[in-house]
Amino acid sequence: MIKKGISASKGYAIGHVFIKADNEVKIVEKKISDIESEKARLQGAVEKAREQLTKIKEKAEKDLGADKAAVFESHMMFLDDPDFIGSAENIISDEMINAEKALENVMKNYVAIFEGIEDEYVKERIADVKDVGNRVLQNLAGNDMTSLADVDNNTVVVAHDLTPSDTAQLDKNRVIGFLTNIGGRTSHSAIMARTLEIPAVVGLQDIVESVKNGDTIVVDGAEGIAIINPDEATLKEYEAKKAEYEKKQEKLRELINVETRTKEGKRVEVCGNIGKAKDVEAVLQNGGDGVGLFRTEFLYMDRDQMPTEDEQFEAYKAVVEKMGEKPVVIRTLDIGGDKKLPYLPLPEEMNPFLGYRAIRLCLGRKDIFKIQLRALLRASVYGNLKIMFPMISSLEEFLSAKEVLKECMGELDKEGKKYNAKLETGIMVEIPAAAVNSEELAKYVDFFSIGTNDLIQYTLAADRMNEKVSYLYNPMHPAVLKLIKMTIQSAHKEGKWCGMCGEMAGDEKAIPTLVEYGLDEFSMSASSILTAKELIMKA
Amino acid sequence: MIKKGISASKGYAIGHVFIKADNEVKIVEKKISDIESEKARLQGAVEKAREQLTKIKEKAEKDLGADKAAVFESHMMFLDDPDFIGSAENIISDEMINAEKALENVMKNYVAIFEGIEDEYVKERIADVKDVGNRVLQNLAGNDMTSLADVDNNTVVVAHDLTPSDTAQLDKNRVIGFLTNIGGRTSHSAIMARTLEIPAVVGLQDIVESVKNGDTIVVDGAEGIAIINPDEATLKEYEAKKAEYEKKQEKLRELINVETRTKEGKRVEVCGNIGKAKDVEAVLQNGGDGVGLFRTEFLYMDRDQMPTEDEQFEAYKAVVEKMGEKPVVIRTLDIGGDKKLPYLPLPEEMNPFLGYRAIRLCLGRKDIFKIQLRALLRASVYGNLKIMFPMISSLEEFLSAKEVLKECMGELDKEGKKYNAKLETGIMVEIPAAAVNSEELAKYVDFFSIGTNDLIQYTLAADRMNEKVSYLYNPMHPAVLKLIKMTIQSAHKEGKWCGMCGEMAGDEKAIPTLVEYGLDEFSMSASSILTAKELIMKA
Repeated sequence: MIKKGISASKGYAIGHVFIKADNEVKIVEKKISDIESEKARLQGAVEKAREQLTKIKEKAEKDLGADKAAVFESHMMFLDDPDFIGSAENIISDEMINAEKALENVMKNYVAIFEGIEDEYVKERIADVKDVGNRVLQNLAGNDMTSLADVDNNTVVVAHDLTPSDTAQLDKNRVIGFLTNIGGRTSHSAIMARTLEIPAVVGLQDIVESVKNGDTIVVDGAEGIAIINPDEATLKEYEAKKAEYEKKQEKLRELINVETRTKEGKRVEVCGNIGKAKDVEAVLQNGGDGVGLFRTEFLYMDRDQMPTEDEQFEAYKAVVEKMGEKPVVIRTLDIGGDKKLPYLPLPEEMNPFLGYRAIRLCLGRKDIFKIQLRALLRASVYGNLKIMFPMISSLEEFLSAKEVLKECMGELDKEGKKYNAKLETGIMVEIPAAAVNSEELAKYVDFFSIGTNDLIQYTLAADRMNEKVSYLYNPMHPAVLKLIKMTIQSAHKEGKWCGMCGEMAGDEKAIPTLVEYGLDEFSMSASSILTAKELIMKA
Repeated sequence: MIKKGISASKGYAIGHVFIKADNEVKIVEKKISDIESEKARLQGAVEKAREQLTKIKEKAEKDLGADKAAVFESHMMFLDDPDFIGSAENIISDEMINAEKALENVMKNYVAIFEGIEDEYVKERIADVKDVGNRVLQNLAGNDMTSLADVDNNTVVVAHDLTPSDTAQLDKNRVIGFLTNIGGRTSHSAIMARTLEIPAVVGLQDIVESVKNGDTIVVDGAEGIAIINPDEATLKEYEAKKAEYEKKQEKLRELINVETRTKEGKRVEVCGNIGKAKDVEAVLQNGGDGVGLFRTEFLYMDRDQMPTEDEQFEAYKAVVEKMGEKPVVIRTLDIGGDKKLPYLPLPEEMNPFLGYRAIRLCLGRKDIFKIQLRALLRASVYGNLKIMFPMISSLEEFLSAKEVLKECMGELDKEGKKYNAKLETGIMVEIPAAAVNSEELAKYVDFFSIGTNDLIQYTLAADRMNEKVSYLYNPMHPAVLKLIKMTIQSAHKEGKWCGMCGEMAGDEKAIPTLVEYGLDEFSMSASSILTAKELIMKA
């Protein structure tokens, strides 16, 4: 039987089914007589949850990075929240009922309050409350919550959906793919599948109901299908596909040290996008020509205060030193809108994607901006560092940003601190106005980097995170292509280079067109570099 | 003394100050002994508030239209809400305290709950709770809430801010201008000033603290300044300015029946934007050449179910009949995003301006769309009706909309109902993709109408309602101008006409440029038509 879903992560897997049981526990209200021992039962389950979460968090930090692990931090905070576990204890005393029912009541209250609030962030917290509450309930029920970490080799996990707790437990050595009933390409589970490089299909609707444990199953991540108990012929076909895919992946590794040139002989740079200093390893391992986008906001996240100038300096220095002579394009802080910092309160916005963020915020908060610019300047003597300003919509903004940079240079001069006075400064072209007006902007910048994720959503007025309109989000829309072409031509007319650091740079369907337009640099996640190299060389 | 603020509505006023006292009532907690009589006191104040609101609502409906009056409906609903007044009664019984303190506690609870919710709509409700709660408190205190309606002639109202209750009471025959401490160009009070055509300056910061009742004051709506107790010379200067302005307004009326031609002799249409059938009067009175935008969503608002096909047919027929041979461009339903209907629940969105709205919603809900299209087709035999689709981002969307229209035509054919088979169909160009791709779209449409309000905010990725980024919202940004020019040229290349129905079409600074680009039709609020005519004829 073939089930069709949404391709979440490429590759093929042939394995046996492990159904991850629904996390929900059936709760029955029971009267209790010994309040203290019931409270102790609850505390025991909470303690166990804390241990589990600590382990999961450590594993997630190691496998997935600190930013992806942060969710477990907030789960643990719920365990310490007197309004959460404390309230359940009060209900145990006041109503003399069992811990399960008491905790369920508290969870229901939380969910009811949160659901009344029409806010995306709050909705995420509903998932957190359910996830952590369920964990405690499972512990109370004595259920084994660690099962996902203990599956056999060659397991394909089948689930209604996978929570952050679930995916963090997946062991790549044993779980070779997963399939879920719900979700889309941007759902948590899909993103995790790509990060883990495990083939996955989501949005299959009734895959859980269609399989039983131990069934043989094929995951076709390329087509977005799952085949349950395939016949011999199909199995053979997929074994061949899988072998071919793996061979291709292996063959791609031969390109690591090959210089990327198009058919016409044009030298093109294929670079990696990074969020942390340690991501540089993967870029180098995959033969990246440089870092095309260093998203510095990760330096600011998961902390309770701004990183100091020295902390930032050390991080930038580490990256440029590791990259040697290879270019490192560092984007200045792109925070605000949907990306928030706990120590930088910002007004809530009705349309955060059209709001006060990135360069807008930095030009409004020069105190914050200057710390970063000084750190970048100081690091610029240790390698090939370029500065890139995000969300530029007008020439004035770029000139203002340069003005602040000049101010920082003046300060460093006075302090006798070194920097590379000739470092390149460029802009993200991610707002339609910048693309439309690129001819003028090209006269002033050293380079452009097209940020397609935002450029597409603004050009089409379609929030790519909104499932109701994501069908409109089309990188190959003629207007998007026209703006990209226009931007590249404007850069070349002024003798500047033009790169791209949005997802489209690694999109196999788009690469031939981008080569045709004359794009000089492609920057993408490290795992896509080799495939892109191959395609560029063919185009 | 001169105070500088933000120009909210043009014109000049010279009058005397009436300070609208701050609405806040000082509440002291008092113990009571007679619960029933205290409850009766509260009920009396509530009853009085209901009467006041009924009157205000009626006046608002007459002066400002039903949509602006709807806010008082929601105020009255609070009076009936058992959680609001009912809770106050409970507090009176339970705590034996005075009605004022009881109500204040309930208001504080509401505000605390609402303020915890980060949502623009909920924030508006905070203002409602405060407004209606204060009204009851003022009634309990025996304060006179009707004072604004009873001021003398030549009054300039000075206030911290004006609430909807306040502005609805303003009598244009006696209140000749107003000044407020807070607010911006898009604040409620500023919009009301323009609707009432009263000069106003907002955001003056400390105007309340700088004047006393009876002071002579000059309101300069053009420059956004207020002059307190001006000297003789200044007074003379402003009397002259005011006379000149009024003469100019009078002189403009001579243009009512003049055909609008540019200096080069090109015939240009100057039309009005309307929201209701009755708005047609003002368009005709100001010499409009047609209706360039009929915002049909007002037919859907302030009701508890969809308007039927016949109801819509009658409304469209009334408009086209009144306009005679003059063109009437009717935009299909632009609902969703920030505009909601009580009977059409839609998922909450993180970025409603980039969300599921207008044509996106109509193509997803053909049941709703077809009712409107059938009504439009049936009305098309009674005048010069053209259909315009909003938020078109791609050719596919326009062709799908035309497909639905064709389906409706087929149905009407079968039913033997008449329609104008040759009626023009066009699109709003308000998404950057439509402007960038206008060359292709022009081949298929009968006309374009550039919707600058949205086009500017998407092109610059700046929400015009967001005060933190509204400084970026610049109609004269080179990229915006380039897209407008491109759109007009694309239309002309295919022999189609191009209009504009955003605020920019009536913007004095923009009109010369738009004439130069060859814009064929300018559509704006009726009150701006004559000024625009004059400017176009000079350009």
